[in-house]
Amino acid sequence: MTDWAGLTWPEVAEAVERQPVALLPFGAVEEHGPHLPLGTDVLAADGLAERLANTAGLLRLPTVPYGQVWSLEHFPGSLSVRDETLVALVTDLAGGLSRAGVRGIVLFSAHLGNAAALRKAARTLAETGGLPAIALTYPGLAEVAKEVRESADSHPSIMHADEIETSVLLALAPDHVRMDRAVTEYPVYPQDFDAAPVRWDTVSRSGVFGDATAATPGKGERVVDHVVRTAADLIAGWRKRVGV
Amino acid sequence: MTDWAGLTWPEVAEAVERQPVALLPFGAVEEHGPHLPLGTDVLAADGLAERLANTAGLLRLPTVPYGQVWSLEHFPGSLSVRDETLVALVTDLAGGLSRAGVRGIVLFSAHLGNAAALRKAARTLAETGGLPAIALTYPGLAEVAKEVRESADSHPSIMHADEIETSVLLALAPDHVRMDRAVTEYPVYPQDFDAAPVRWDTVSRSGVFGDATAATPGKGERVVDHVVRTAADLIAGWRKRVGV
Amino acid sequence: MTDWAGLTWPEVAEAVERQPVALLPFGAVEEHGPHLPLGTDVLAADGLAERLANTAGLLRLPTVPYGQVWSLEHFPGSLSVRDETLVALVTDLAGGLSRAGVRGIVLFSAHLGNAAALRKAARTLAETGGLPAIALTYPGLAEVAKEVRESADSHPSIMHADEIETSVLLALAPDHVRMDRAVTEYPVYPQDFDAAPVRWDTVSRSGVFGDATAATPGKGERVVDHVVRTAADLIAGWRKRVGV
Amino acid sequence: MTDWAGLTWPEVAEAVERQPVALLPFGAVEEHGPHLPLGTDVLAADGLAERLANTAGLLRLPTVPYGQVWSLEHFPGSLSVRDETLVALVTDLAGGLSRAGVRGIVLFSAHLGNAAALRKAARTLAETGGLPAIALTYPGLAEVAKEVRESADSHPSIMHADEIETSVLLALAPDHVRMDRAVTEYPVYPQDFDAAPVRWDTVSRSGVFGDATAATPGKGERVVDHVVRTAADLIAGWRKRVGV
Amino acid sequence: MTDWAGLTWPEVAEAVERQPVALLPFGAVEEHGPHLPLGTDVLAADGLAERLANTAGLLRLPTVPYGQVWSLEHFPGSLSVRDETLVALVTDLAGGLSRAGVRGIVLFSAHLGNAAALRKAARTLAETGGLPAIALTYPGLAEVAKEVRESADSHPSIMHADEIETSVLLALAPDHVRMDRAVTEYPVYPQDFDAAPVRWDTVSRSGVFGDATAATPGKGERVVDHVVRTAADLIAGWRKRVGV
Amino acid sequence: MTDWAGLTWPEVAEAVERQPVALLPFGAVEEHGPHLPLGTDVLAADGLAERLANTAGLLRLPTVPYGQVWSLEHFPGSLSVRDETLVALVTDLAGGLSRAGVRGIVLFSAHLGNAAALRKAARTLAETGGLPAIALTYPGLAEVAKEVRESADSHPSIMHADEIETSVLLALAPDHVRMDRAVTEYPVYPQDFDAAPVRWDTVSRSGVFGDATAATPGKGERVVDHVVRTAADLIAGWRKRVGV
Repeated sequence: MTDWAGLTWPEVAEAVERQPVALLPFGAVEEHGPHLPLGTDVLAADGLAERLANTAGLLRLPTVPYGQVWSLEHFPGSLSVRDETLVALVTDLAGGLSRAGVRGIVLFSAHLGNAAALRKAARTLAETGGLPAIALTYPGLAEVAKEVRESADSHPSIMHADEIETSVLLALAPDHVRMDRAVTEYPVYPQDFDAAPVRWDTVSRSGVFGDATAATPGKGERVVDHVVRTAADLIAGWRKRVGV
Repeated sequence: MTDWAGLTWPEVAEAVERQPVALLPFGAVEEHGPHLPLGTDVLAADGLAERLANTAGLLRLPTVPYGQVWSLEHFPGSLSVRDETLVALVTDLAGGLSRAGVRGIVLFSAHLGNAAALRKAARTLAETGGLPAIALTYPGLAEVAKEVRESADSHPSIMHADEIETSVLLALAPDHVRMDRAVTEYPVYPQDFDAAPVRWDTVSRSGVFGDATAATPGKGERVVDHVVRTAADLIAGWRKRVGV
Repeated sequence: MTDWAGLTWPEVAEAVERQPVALLPFGAVEEHGPHLPLGTDVLAADGLAERLANTAGLLRLPTVPYGQVWSLEHFPGSLSVRDETLVALVTDLAGGLSRAGVRGIVLFSAHLGNAAALRKAARTLAETGGLPAIALTYPGLAEVAKEVRESADSHPSIMHADEIETSVLLALAPDHVRMDRAVTEYPVYPQDFDAAPVRWDTVSRSGVFGDATAATPGKGERVVDHVVRTAADLIAGWRKRVGV
Repeated sequence: MTDWAGLTWPEVAEAVERQPVALLPFGAVEEHGPHLPLGTDVLAADGLAERLANTAGLLRLPTVPYGQVWSLEHFPGSLSVRDETLVALVTDLAGGLSRAGVRGIVLFSAHLGNAAALRKAARTLAETGGLPAIALTYPGLAEVAKEVRESADSHPSIMHADEIETSVLLALAPDHVRMDRAVTEYPVYPQDFDAAPVRWDTVSRSGVFGDATAATPGKGERVVDHVVRTAADLIAGWRKRVGV
Repeated sequence: MTDWAGLTWPEVAEAVERQPVALLPFGAVEEHGPHLPLGTDVLAADGLAERLANTAGLLRLPTVPYGQVWSLEHFPGSLSVRDETLVALVTDLAGGLSRAGVRGIVLFSAHLGNAAALRKAARTLAETGGLPAIALTYPGLAEVAKEVRESADSHPSIMHADEIETSVLLALAPDHVRMDRAVTEYPVYPQDFDAAPVRWDTVSRSGVFGDATAATPGKGERVVDHVVRTAADLIAGWRKRVGV
Repeated sequence: MTDWAGLTWPEVAEAVERQPVALLPFGAVEEHGPHLPLGTDVLAADGLAERLANTAGLLRLPTVPYGQVWSLEHFPGSLSVRDETLVALVTDLAGGLSRAGVRGIVLFSAHLGNAAALRKAARTLAETGGLPAIALTYPGLAEVAKEVRESADSHPSIMHADEIETSVLLALAPDHVRMDRAVTEYPVYPQDFDAAPVRWDTVSRSGVFGDATAATPGKGERVVDHVVRTAADLIAGWRKRVGV
């Protein structure tokens, strides 16, 4: 049993003793093109977290389904939560985890927009003597994507509703993908795209950032597998370093 | 389709036009005795929300799995989120809902501890000209519980891991209930229980507040049915009154 | 001498030793119909607190005359203070009380709208290792009102400028009551009144919620007496439980 | 009738039309030597405000009995409220005053420690387009004290439990003064007293800052009279300037 | 070497041991008439701080160039920072200073508008057990100005772009003064100027508050010399008192 | 004249009309090895900003000398400011800039640790309808460093007190560099270095992250030149895009 919410309270002590590190997954609700649902990042977070919990021996917590989606906030259906709210959520939860005997938290996000908040949360916990935390957002993605992808990427640090993310969903939640609606769109990014605040709806019509039609379940499996193994390695190193 | 997370963004406009009121369910992670899982209120929120969305024609949002569990926070496994964090989450989300054309929000909690925060959130939205909101926590519970229950209640306003709540879980998520572990415990409440801050672990050993052994799926169905119908009625009245 | 503000500082130590629990009363400034002044809840808080301090042997602090009156805020003359401000006030004052040797605080409100904030303040003090606190708002009112009232109530949890509250004022501050202007009005509450934020000026023209004409000083005395005794009992139990 | 709390709500509109500027008095609870009560500044605020309301034609609000008493906070019995809490209180109340038609607020303090917070509150209201406000703390005191006092002052900007303040109390609330306990103490102020944070209990044993024995009711009357007239003049000028 | 920013980190320990008190200077960016630059207070802060660091043996930190300029905020070019931001800056920096072994902080402002924030910051540090701090704003100015000035002052507590401040700049940064543009303007202050929030652009056209044409470098030298010596004396007394 | 602080207020309007975009530079005070001063990033910010202002025709504001140096905070002499404080500073200043007619802000940092805060500040301004902002931290550094460096880098995204940064200082502020003390140190980064909060003093003894001895002024000139030109290009593109 690796699922916190499925335990009864008398079972918690033993479960924590066996698996003293908790896994807190984060998704997001935001547009993912015409072929993927708004809850794509929640599905990905659930799927990745389940595999990671098993691989790395972590106690999995319920996925936080809402995230910071500032960039895509102006597409209909996107629901953004501020960084401050996410940080507050993590530091609130860390109190109860600590009381239960948990000794470290893995903050795992399937959505890039959460990365800054989770990093901040980890630092805040470190400053205040809270639980040690590590913040991971699709670790190892860049390297595996380079190997897997057949279509060009649209931007070196964006994976959104494209060949790669669509493949991940085909691997993790195929029933939620409508490949018949998949499209290809390569946004023209303004020169200052990485420096100034740019809402992504100003550069994309479809909400797809690359070629979604090139996605396959097999590619998704390779990405998922690599991300999970990379995460497990990082977590192992981190646990050794901080002694949890 | 009544599930926000399952829509693609191009489908949002039409879905909202058909169903302009969103349903945001809230659960909690907290002890529920030796026979119910920590995620009981998440399961209840999911189950009740699904029925309510269908009955009342609402667009259902992903359930917020964490809630304010101050009273039971000191039982192992309970994870509490502060009122302020819950209020922030609601007001953050209301922005995106509003942009998508949603005209009202039903805040629906399967956990009593969230009630103050959701009430506050609804007022905050009202003060700031945000979306109209209604906050419901097991509406109609008192009256149906009185009819359904065979065992005594432990406290007029507490339904926790007892005959009633266990019955609800038996109706909504029977696989998560271990009736063989169900127990009966009637806490002796101190005289000032309703006035001073009292952690409930100081009055209960098992975390059960009544007689869990008296629970049956049939009782749960009656409770669920009444709560959903009461909620739908209240929502209908509210929509008429505020014009959404 | 039970009045903090009337002591000199060299007298504080001895007074606190004799009476180590302080009583902090809260009123409010809000509409109370055509026959009761805006300061009704301040008068009630003063009168009830004086009796309670004597009965329960508490050190009485000056009454906070402003409260949270969200529901009636839109009547002319109502002056509302946010919950957060009330909580801050209590936690600020608790510092000085603690330094003076006080070992517990009774937060006593003669206005229902303050209840959520005072409850929150008591919890905040509990969480931060501050002074133990108990929050009381007209304790025992429901039961004594049922016995005393001759007219119907307008709502099970509202006592506002009606037979009961007017009677209380007739008992505690008769010079401030103009019975010749007393009226009867039974609001028609919308179905969602207890769930959604409803400003009470949308349901009442006079600001009276019942039959004010049925008030008498004798009824008021009975209510006051019962509320004070109930409060004293609760405080005695609380003090025993928390050891102050 | 110049007393807000004594009005009924239907009387507010007319009262405000006649007297569109409100007077919000501030006291404090802090040590005032062995001869004056902790509530001295509340008594002074009440007395001065009553006279000022009559003289200047202002609608008087209930006195806020708690203030910022950082400097004397470590004397037993002093109860300090943070600046932020006072600012919040004022801005909260300004909302209701504005809705009632009030066009300006006089923040009047009988306690020097409130001055910074009230000045800040007035600026905050100005920045946010709230009600125009003026903040007065014993205006004209320095000039009248120079004329009235027979004993030396202890510090150019401190009037605390000395000849002057004791005289004011003898004029406004003689029953609360115990002249038989009045003492004389001239603190030796450290050189950096005005620049660094200095708790005043480190420079005074008695809490008297000068010669309290020189106080007389007549001196108090002269001070009160001058302060009220000065305040009324300033308010008149302010009202003309800001057009309220 | 008395300049923190010029040290390398391995030199810090020894420097702090020799000079355990740090000097944090504050300027401001605001209008200073037609003859002085917007950065006048930064130049003054730099110049005064350099001399003071040498005289009093302090470790000088980089000057904070922005300050609270509420009063003159509406002149073009003025850039105001809120009090809260300044307080946060000081308390943030105090952490690192403390870790480096620093035992006290001199907050030194060449701009009156910063005084309230710096006083607040010093108190905040005192309350939280942070570094002892003293807040100085042109100490001794009033007395030396009285001796030095040939023109009348415009207001007892205002020195702004007038004979005195222009003289200070002529002494500290003569290249930045354009005496050919110096003017004389005596604002007519409204009666309530010291009590109500008054933007100074409503009383001055030029932004000069007195007679700037009377300035000379020699007067400036006398002012600077006196202010630095007064500051050094106060700091010496403070260090002795608090033991740093 | 491109220097805001050097203008008088009557000159602001014309200067802003000519150069409607302001440049706000950010440095930091933190360890930079045994050969570079704590104020290295302030010197770099000043030097780069001066060139950039000239190249891109911007109105240069005074450099904020303090920054977020969380990672190196535990080296003696480092002084860190929280992200929140930096964001507050920017949004405060934006008010005055906007009033003066400025139409956009370039937030330019010579310190990587400020990047998250400045990005946040730019978004905050965008959300609140404040001035458009772009946040730049050594833009183009990676590409020019790759060309210029002769020694290996220690980490793909760290440039700290190494060949490159030392070269920049040799170009911009040679008097502050003590090449005789330059050292070489290649930290061994833990596997989780980019994911978990790691204080850099746990991986480096000297505070140098690479080979400082390989630095030359010529390399620094090339870096500076490229960064300034890259920044100017990005700013030009941004201005065109947002129309300022």
